[in-house]
Amino acid sequence: MAARRTLSPEEMAERLVSGDRRMAARVITMAENRSEKIGDLMKLIYPHTGKAMVIGLTGAGGSGKSTLIDRLIGRFRQRDMTVGVIAVDPSSPFSGGAILGDRIRFQKHSIDDGVFIRSMGSRGYLGGLARAASDVVRIIEALGQDVIIVETLGAGQDEVDVFHVAQTCLLLLTPGMGDDIQAMKAGIMEIAHLIVLNKADLDGAEACLRSLEATLHMGLGDKQDGWIPRILPTVAAGVREGQVQGIEELFEAILAHQMYLRESRAMDQLQAARVEQELGLIFKDELEKIVFAGLKGTGRKRDYIEAIMAGRNDPYSVVEEVLREFFIGRNSGERSS
Amino acid sequence: MAARRTLSPEEMAERLVSGDRRMAARVITMAENRSEKIGDLMKLIYPHTGKAMVIGLTGAGGSGKSTLIDRLIGRFRQRDMTVGVIAVDPSSPFSGGAILGDRIRFQKHSIDDGVFIRSMGSRGYLGGLARAASDVVRIIEALGQDVIIVETLGAGQDEVDVFHVAQTCLLLLTPGMGDDIQAMKAGIMEIAHLIVLNKADLDGAEACLRSLEATLHMGLGDKQDGWIPRILPTVAAGVREGQVQGIEELFEAILAHQMYLRESRAMDQLQAARVEQELGLIFKDELEKIVFAGLKGTGRKRDYIEAIMAGRNDPYSVVEEVLREFFIGRNSGERSS
Repeated sequence: MAARRTLSPEEMAERLVSGDRRMAARVITMAENRSEKIGDLMKLIYPHTGKAMVIGLTGAGGSGKSTLIDRLIGRFRQRDMTVGVIAVDPSSPFSGGAILGDRIRFQKHSIDDGVFIRSMGSRGYLGGLARAASDVVRIIEALGQDVIIVETLGAGQDEVDVFHVAQTCLLLLTPGMGDDIQAMKAGIMEIAHLIVLNKADLDGAEACLRSLEATLHMGLGDKQDGWIPRILPTVAAGVREGQVQGIEELFEAILAHQMYLRESRAMDQLQAARVEQELGLIFKDELEKIVFAGLKGTGRKRDYIEAIMAGRNDPYSVVEEVLREFFIGRNSGERSS
Repeated sequence: MAARRTLSPEEMAERLVSGDRRMAARVITMAENRSEKIGDLMKLIYPHTGKAMVIGLTGAGGSGKSTLIDRLIGRFRQRDMTVGVIAVDPSSPFSGGAILGDRIRFQKHSIDDGVFIRSMGSRGYLGGLARAASDVVRIIEALGQDVIIVETLGAGQDEVDVFHVAQTCLLLLTPGMGDDIQAMKAGIMEIAHLIVLNKADLDGAEACLRSLEATLHMGLGDKQDGWIPRILPTVAAGVREGQVQGIEELFEAILAHQMYLRESRAMDQLQAARVEQELGLIFKDELEKIVFAGLKGTGRKRDYIEAIMAGRNDPYSVVEEVLREFFIGRNSGERSS
């Protein structure tokens, strides 16, 4: 086998933007590992992003996320739209990778060239999951996918941050889920545009629908932009044709919400909010690198830790001291000139 | 009712350290809300911290965390040790508070003066959950509790960060849990010292124990400090005496691990790692405040967002530009003097 030629960021960007799926996978790995080239590459591909329909899907394990996504992919493909899926899985902080194989989860579409699927671990990213996921969405946008579905378990601040990248947010529930889900709902409902009650053929589905509707009637889910969330019962799993229910209605509801965003100009606000979040994530990350690198090289960190453990100092005072030196020290240096 | 007198940080610290539980609750709220005084307060109480036995307990919803903690509290109280519990609950990013009431969860011990219980939401903290939780553990240590139990669901990077504060880490599993739990296990097993199989009277417990033991036999859970994780079956729930099982063995195993830490001097390394993490969390948080404040005031942020949305710029270049100005600009300012 010939050795892989080292490509310039320009060459890589060109291949990615022209629809090279293997290049997309490679660039995503570079983003996840924070390779040195990734900054230049992201600048090059950025103008080719921002046009996809980004759908967020969150729900606990066992709610049927993969099956539902599989159905949605099928519907989008029928309309000849290309699809990207980013699945955030719980994983080892050490392995860095996702545990469930992409191909196993979405078997039917794994050989379809119009579908690009990528799993991400929920831990172990240098700049945090949200920063990594934000880059990955941009990369799949640059690849040219029309629709991107971002799947998370919806637990923890970092996953909520990931969710913010989505324009249309789906919350997936099932009848008879436990207290944890009820608790989670309270937080997620505030960002969900469509609430999907999957496995709606199970016992308790009717009662669950009524309770969800009652919650929405109190206006608890209403969005600032005027969108009133809808509840959609589905049965995503099923071998025979008649068993699967509600997918068409869900598909239409997603398109309706996208239409609403475009007509109400809420889409512009969403894009601005996304850029703002992106700026914040990149900023934080780069700053940390600069300051931590500064501290590390000097060996002062070890001295500080020893002083704190010996009771001669505390971390709050140490941080104050270092920051004062770093910022105010430089200011006064300027003033004295 | 008389108005609450404004206390100085010195007065508050004194009351907290002398065991005033109401003051502890108040200081925790200040830490969670990042009140202005909290920095000074934390500096004052810091020398009174670092002596507690800190136990982490993680497990999915329904694994019986609260019941098990209830049993453990009972055992520690029998030995006349005071206990603090920090329970991290999924919650609304908006309400900020925890959903399940502390008193409801640990009814038996809620009126015991030797037990201090606090719930924290898993989202909505300005500097992140890990930063807030780190402060809360220090505050409960300053209150003088001998043992602190930190309970989390174990999902997401922020909860894993919280877990790092613990010296003895317990992973709670139950027989027959789904794929999500299996996946989670892979990540958490690497940091768990004791693996508790709760509800060990259920079907499938034997098979589950065997599979866990096989995993450990491969050395997958072994720690760098030489500790080999143990598996302990328990039945924490039960009204009659004979129904509850394995609590005594678990209690002894916790004490044995603590003894191991002290004798192997691994405790010193743990304390150093905790201080290092703390430094990092405080650092990051304070840095963000400085830079975001700087950007916000100028109205430049809006200009940048507009330029990015119009395709005239991208977030990666913007961050580079601002940072260059912030750091290199100041350096060259100094140099020119």
